[in-house]
Amino acid sequence: MKITVLTLFPTYFQSLLNTSIIKRAYEKDLFEFETIDFREYTNEKHGHVDDTPYGGGAGMVLMCQPIVDALKAIRTPESLVIMLTPQGKTFSQPIAQDLSKKKHLIFLCGHYEGFDERIRDYVDMQLSLGDFVLTGGESACAVMCDAILRLLPGVIRQDSSEDDSFSNGLLEYPQYTKPAVFDGKNVPDVLLSGHHANIDAWRREQSVIRTAKIRPELLDHVELTPAEKRLVKEILKS
Amino acid sequence: MKITVLTLFPTYFQSLLNTSIIKRAYEKDLFEFETIDFREYTNEKHGHVDDTPYGGGAGMVLMCQPIVDALKAIRTPESLVIMLTPQGKTFSQPIAQDLSKKKHLIFLCGHYEGFDERIRDYVDMQLSLGDFVLTGGESACAVMCDAILRLLPGVIRQDSSEDDSFSNGLLEYPQYTKPAVFDGKNVPDVLLSGHHANIDAWRREQSVIRTAKIRPELLDHVELTPAEKRLVKEILKS
Repeated sequence: MKITVLTLFPTYFQSLLNTSIIKRAYEKDLFEFETIDFREYTNEKHGHVDDTPYGGGAGMVLMCQPIVDALKAIRTPESLVIMLTPQGKTFSQPIAQDLSKKKHLIFLCGHYEGFDERIRDYVDMQLSLGDFVLTGGESACAVMCDAILRLLPGVIRQDSSEDDSFSNGLLEYPQYTKPAVFDGKNVPDVLLSGHHANIDAWRREQSVIRTAKIRPELLDHVELTPAEKRLVKEILKS
Repeated sequence: MKITVLTLFPTYFQSLLNTSIIKRAYEKDLFEFETIDFREYTNEKHGHVDDTPYGGGAGMVLMCQPIVDALKAIRTPESLVIMLTPQGKTFSQPIAQDLSKKKHLIFLCGHYEGFDERIRDYVDMQLSLGDFVLTGGESACAVMCDAILRLLPGVIRQDSSEDDSFSNGLLEYPQYTKPAVFDGKNVPDVLLSGHHANIDAWRREQSVIRTAKIRPELLDHVELTPAEKRLVKEILKS
């Protein structure tokens, strides 16, 4: 997997590459990562990449030429070009899983007032991180890269990613570590019992309960046992 | 506004503070920002902040003591303590607007397998960036800080933030800049007309059309004119 980020702020991604799990994976060459400043591709004599919007209004709009020329220079038949934009499809774990199987991802990060509308014709996919506004696409891109890269073989332990929230469609069950009593609060007895079948059953039930209480819409895509369906019905009624 | 981030990776936030609009605002003292490594608060003799989960399973769980003691040391009556967790409420523009009015935000970033369940009793709010899994809360926290900080007075031009996607509940209208023709693609005539009332009407209509096509659920919270309601009905039918 190779990731290329087209951005006006290439240094933003140093934090991602220099932190924890992603840092170790990068040092082990488990993926390639490059940033390209699309300012390098502008034909504008003062080096500008943006201009005022047609029709008036605040802010600046990113011009077609530098971005389209940068894409022409770097894309290959194996590349998937992803524009980060509030109008994109909302990023999610299934999208992260799908993208983690690609050979070359090119992320296009906007800034200021956004892209000239015509640039959309040159990308394969438009993604949004959520319903909020950012100063630029860089911080959103770092989040997506983190979510995608951790799914690559060797980056984290396989059994670890299988337990994650959303990986089985449910929120994760409650986790506890030492001490058994903290500030008067106890760890549930079952977790101290050593009875693995009971622990697994409790954890599954807690995941279902928590999901039903906090994010019931997630259950539409999860296969539940008849007993779990009854439990969910009870929770949704109360 | 002051932001304090409790994290095991304090250097992650250098990129946020060193980039573009947020950098300029930070240099102008429009907000205060500090990171605190909660490892400094651990009583564990080897400096650990995590331990294996009760009941078994992969990965490590963040212990209560260092985090709860760090919170006790830094929170004041003006602080709002926010835990970043997949089980939190999904972050959105209204939440960013609400948080931008607070005096002191304390973000608690997890890592590895997440928090001991009992830590939730010591926080005021739980937030999630979306339905995906990250190696840690840091990249998500940087996104939320960006979304919140850009709303502080003086960070960006007021008229600029009013036009954003989601700020009026709709996706933003298409934007164009020079040249009027690029690669055979024209800027819509109305934007070149200089007729401001027509331009405003076209932009509003484009916002409504785009939102109806891509994110119809957003329209539930937007006041539409009778003509716009008919337009939306037509789009949703086709």
